[in-house]
Amino acid sequence: MEIVCLLFDGITALDIVGPYEVLQRLPDANVTFVAEQSGPVRTDKGFLGLVADKSIDEVTSAHVLVVPGGFATRELEHNERLLEWIRAIDATTTWTTSVCTGSMLLAAAGLLEGKEATTHWASLDRLKEYGAIPTGRRVVEQGKIVTAAGVSSGIDMALTLMARIAGDELAQAIQLGIEYDPQPPFDSGSLEKAPQAAIERLVLLYGDQA
Amino acid sequence: MEIVCLLFDGITALDIVGPYEVLQRLPDANVTFVAEQSGPVRTDKGFLGLVADKSIDEVTSAHVLVVPGGFATRELEHNERLLEWIRAIDATTTWTTSVCTGSMLLAAAGLLEGKEATTHWASLDRLKEYGAIPTGRRVVEQGKIVTAAGVSSGIDMALTLMARIAGDELAQAIQLGIEYDPQPPFDSGSLEKAPQAAIERLVLLYGDQA
Repeated sequence: MEIVCLLFDGITALDIVGPYEVLQRLPDANVTFVAEQSGPVRTDKGFLGLVADKSIDEVTSAHVLVVPGGFATRELEHNERLLEWIRAIDATTTWTTSVCTGSMLLAAAGLLEGKEATTHWASLDRLKEYGAIPTGRRVVEQGKIVTAAGVSSGIDMALTLMARIAGDELAQAIQLGIEYDPQPPFDSGSLEKAPQAAIERLVLLYGDQA
Repeated sequence: MEIVCLLFDGITALDIVGPYEVLQRLPDANVTFVAEQSGPVRTDKGFLGLVADKSIDEVTSAHVLVVPGGFATRELEHNERLLEWIRAIDATTTWTTSVCTGSMLLAAAGLLEGKEATTHWASLDRLKEYGAIPTGRRVVEQGKIVTAAGVSSGIDMALTLMARIAGDELAQAIQLGIEYDPQPPFDSGSLEKAPQAAIERLVLLYGDQA
């Protein structure tokens, strides 16, 4: 099972590490991290380097493609070389997936036209620009394309995907393996649940890039 | 706010990326990834390289120390150079934290003696070998030392810590920023909740290293 994880400068690390941590536990998984050029990329604020072992030119197929997000996707939506690669890999996949604004890259590549999809809540409306149908669900399955909401949702997406690939029992075993028994100290993970003051604080921090 | 994240070969990536993703969003955060030697380390199965920008010799203090886990900690429990560094950094911290079997390193360094602590469920009993008191709570606060349970629990730990550092409102804002509204497709994240078949499947996969 060839799992290909896209990296780029300006990535949100948890977008890709969440699904990777789940999917790498498939007993026959082989995970490859790729970027436009091989070598390290830096995360959004530059604090962490993640290593792409291969360039996109070296990877021509995948069983599972995982496309993460980050502020950088705004620019990458216009990167024709990358979008062409996403289209070419998608033509070979069993599953094409995204987390957070990674779905904006799938959308820009033309893969979400007429399909329901999700992304980070702050970008949800923008999916329409590419003919996708935004939905508020955390994990959205449309045939072989699975999009997930913001950042942390990739863990839920990957467990859902693992159940499809290898059955509920293995997905449950892996959930136990990563002790994914979430107990956030607050219930503030969506616009509907977050206190107004927290929403305003976030907008102050990030503006429209929240 | 200097946040120091330890890396080593054989690390479980989500252990460190979960807390990093939360804590880096503190407005005054400066996050440094360190390892015994600077340069890339590889995760448990070798699929991902994470870059340590500094060696432990170059980092002599921290406001927050985050020590992750992974199968490699079994060996690192006997790495006196690393344990000495952990003790030296702890002497400077406001908060010393761990995720998963990272707490075994804090324990081996002598920092958990007589204290309640947690770790991955499969290693919980081993905390006693170092005089710590194992507890089943997901996030365990003991003064400035905060230990978290397995792998994914670091996200809950970091949100808890952020509330202590900067108040509930910012923690709630960041929870919204990473859209941490967990909706796992199964309720199998602890030994108490997982179906027996899933537990047995996991033991088959990992043996006593689950």
